[in-house]
Amino acid sequence: MTARDKGIGSATTTPAADRPAVRVAVLGCGVVGTEVVRLLTTQSADLTARVGAPLELVGVAVRSVETERDPVVDRALLTTDAAGLVATADIVVEVLGGIEPARSLLLRAIEHGAAVVSANKALLAQDGPTLYQAADAADVDLYLEGAVGGAIPLVRPVRESLVGDRVRRVLGIVNGTTNYVLGRMAAAGLELDTAVAEAQALGYAEADPTADIEGYDAAAKAAILASHAFHTRVALDDVDREGITGVTADDVAWAARTGHVIKLLAIAERRVDGDGIDGVQVRVHPALLPLTHPLASVGGPFNAVFVEAEAAGELMFYGRGAGGAPTASAVVGDIVSAARHRVHGGRGPAESWYAALPVLPADAARTRYQVRLDVDDRPGVLAQVSAVLADHGVSIEAVRQSVGASGGASGPDGTEPGVAHLVMTTHEAPEAALAATVAVIDVLDSVREVVSVLRVEGA
Amino acid sequence: MTARDKGIGSATTTPAADRPAVRVAVLGCGVVGTEVVRLLTTQSADLTARVGAPLELVGVAVRSVETERDPVVDRALLTTDAAGLVATADIVVEVLGGIEPARSLLLRAIEHGAAVVSANKALLAQDGPTLYQAADAADVDLYLEGAVGGAIPLVRPVRESLVGDRVRRVLGIVNGTTNYVLGRMAAAGLELDTAVAEAQALGYAEADPTADIEGYDAAAKAAILASHAFHTRVALDDVDREGITGVTADDVAWAARTGHVIKLLAIAERRVDGDGIDGVQVRVHPALLPLTHPLASVGGPFNAVFVEAEAAGELMFYGRGAGGAPTASAVVGDIVSAARHRVHGGRGPAESWYAALPVLPADAARTRYQVRLDVDDRPGVLAQVSAVLADHGVSIEAVRQSVGASGGASGPDGTEPGVAHLVMTTHEAPEAALAATVAVIDVLDSVREVVSVLRVEGA
Repeated sequence: MTARDKGIGSATTTPAADRPAVRVAVLGCGVVGTEVVRLLTTQSADLTARVGAPLELVGVAVRSVETERDPVVDRALLTTDAAGLVATADIVVEVLGGIEPARSLLLRAIEHGAAVVSANKALLAQDGPTLYQAADAADVDLYLEGAVGGAIPLVRPVRESLVGDRVRRVLGIVNGTTNYVLGRMAAAGLELDTAVAEAQALGYAEADPTADIEGYDAAAKAAILASHAFHTRVALDDVDREGITGVTADDVAWAARTGHVIKLLAIAERRVDGDGIDGVQVRVHPALLPLTHPLASVGGPFNAVFVEAEAAGELMFYGRGAGGAPTASAVVGDIVSAARHRVHGGRGPAESWYAALPVLPADAARTRYQVRLDVDDRPGVLAQVSAVLADHGVSIEAVRQSVGASGGASGPDGTEPGVAHLVMTTHEAPEAALAATVAVIDVLDSVREVVSVLRVEGA
Repeated sequence: MTARDKGIGSATTTPAADRPAVRVAVLGCGVVGTEVVRLLTTQSADLTARVGAPLELVGVAVRSVETERDPVVDRALLTTDAAGLVATADIVVEVLGGIEPARSLLLRAIEHGAAVVSANKALLAQDGPTLYQAADAADVDLYLEGAVGGAIPLVRPVRESLVGDRVRRVLGIVNGTTNYVLGRMAAAGLELDTAVAEAQALGYAEADPTADIEGYDAAAKAAILASHAFHTRVALDDVDREGITGVTADDVAWAARTGHVIKLLAIAERRVDGDGIDGVQVRVHPALLPLTHPLASVGGPFNAVFVEAEAAGELMFYGRGAGGAPTASAVVGDIVSAARHRVHGGRGPAESWYAALPVLPADAARTRYQVRLDVDDRPGVLAQVSAVLADHGVSIEAVRQSVGASGGASGPDGTEPGVAHLVMTTHEAPEAALAATVAVIDVLDSVREVVSVLRVEGA
């Protein structure tokens, strides 16, 4: 025991294994909960050394004790009395998902003086401030690494490592399902519906894929990351959200042809709006990324987040963004931090929203755009369209014109005589100016159709 | 003040700015020290909010107060009495580099009860255990994020986020100078000396580039990362080290021709050696990486580290690996952690070497190899060489044969009649078996020269 004990610190000479155990309750026993139980069980000796005292799993709250489960979960620990369980624990781990009963149980745990660890992005994005205020009032820890980016350390680096720096921008791929779907659309030329069906068949997408496909999952993570990066309360409703349902196989093919890939991005950035207000803008939408951007090659179930800070410069964090074991790794890291505070004193970072920056609306965003139009194939049309952009102060970076509507390569449109396809990439422009531009272009006689308008990021 | 104060936690209602200041002393005022002073000065209000009390910079120890410095450094704070300064501070920040006087000053600071923050990789790789033992005995914090990977959060994720997981392998590019040099060799076909001279002219390499080029800098970082990842004391001397001086333009060109890039890698991995001993093997050497590996595209001054853990899977951390501002970002993050403990109680992770795994020698490593030979251009030679490999249990994954010594493309050798160039990639083999194989091949009549033997990683 001596060597193990020495690793822990010298505040006391009692061997770690002989100290009073830290009592851990787990709420929920799905894929993440099961893997949390597995790590707590199989790594028990290591965790004792790391915490400085044993971690004792005192119970696992489930809806039904009869359900068949992985044998690593000791049936004697199962209980349907979640409210009773939380009142007896030092640390309550919530991996239920959803708003209720997770919210009430966490508040009850905090009220009883327990530290709480949650991987519940929906709850934290919606009710984070309520939970944080309760935790701060009770002077207990609230950890949430598992809620964003699965195994990837993101919350801890942002709120602890970069605490002496100033974050400018967070740009990330935080939803594995849409990343898989867009990857398959690019690799196999599939339309969205086909790719989603394939993902469902493989278990990468839910039977109801709305939360992923419409960007709600990514928006919740964006809100949580933005809150911590900018020391400002950002809720799910503050996030300007657009899912990938508007992305076509044709968009994906044209992205590749112009040296890009389409990704669903979560973006939070500090910027000064047109009225001089210094604030934070948070959004989730599909966007073109140059193939040379480090996020462009992040494929399949992987997530990656770029963070730009004033002193640190560009940082990237990459790893498995979901799944039982990866998320459990993050959750157990949080349990150890909270448990060390129980044993050695102190506490983790409290809610940090001192900056309290205004959350700016979507039209405060300035990005580059790729606009694709089907136009009459005759001289003067490009000049006409360009004039509209110039009138609105939108400057063109590149234009590509080809005969045949929508490029004809992958779409069902085929070629149509007398129609040209115009692909214009703009310099950075305000969202409002671009929207006004497109409205005018759309009604030009020479324009058959505005085929697509996509943002271009990461240039 | 109310909003700022609320961000901090509710243990006390005194506004953060009115609480007793945490006294910070900085040892050294080079590029990193200057940027630390800049962040402490320009971010003062934010740091007060984040810590819960003001950070007061009480002095900056320098060799000469007369030296011209950045105006952000208040001359009134400069002192040549480093020993006197450390005795007056709550937190001592060491950015001197080198072993002495850094070591004695840090020990003195710890003795006086100060928390210490160091970015000194050489000292931590050599004397980490001494410093850690002193810090643990005094129950004070020792933080070191700035010592490895510049701005990239690495030490904190490894020792806090992954604390509930089990690391299998760490694989990283941790030296920007060699990464730049190898990148230039690949991009411009330069020989090493020319690329080093270019790096020196641009300020990317020191006048004496030995520490970088011979891998000492990378080895120090590998020792620090391995210690934290495997909860085992690993010193600089435990690292099997090979620099890039043996890498030729011809090696770099052949790497590209076979779909690889050459990188100087720091590797620490858990493995069981031939005698069944479960231990850690730590090494630094140039190696071929497949172009598809995420580390292959890490260029110029950037660093990146792959971490494979049992539950988390693969993680990657990427960012600026050196430089004043990036390193200062990491250092100030550490200062805030230590300062929060002064204000709110608790302390950071103590030395964790409870696993105390044996450090295995280099010949315990098993990797793939690429061996290039100049051989007689006649039938039967490949069979003869292959037989030697088979005799030693080394299995071949791929062979490529071309006429003309060393491929002739980029080396000064040109083509030579009657000579063929044989490029063999092996499957994973023990280092000892490969060495024995090469020794036998080298004396075969049909073999003119063993041109190069390079490891292949990341497959």
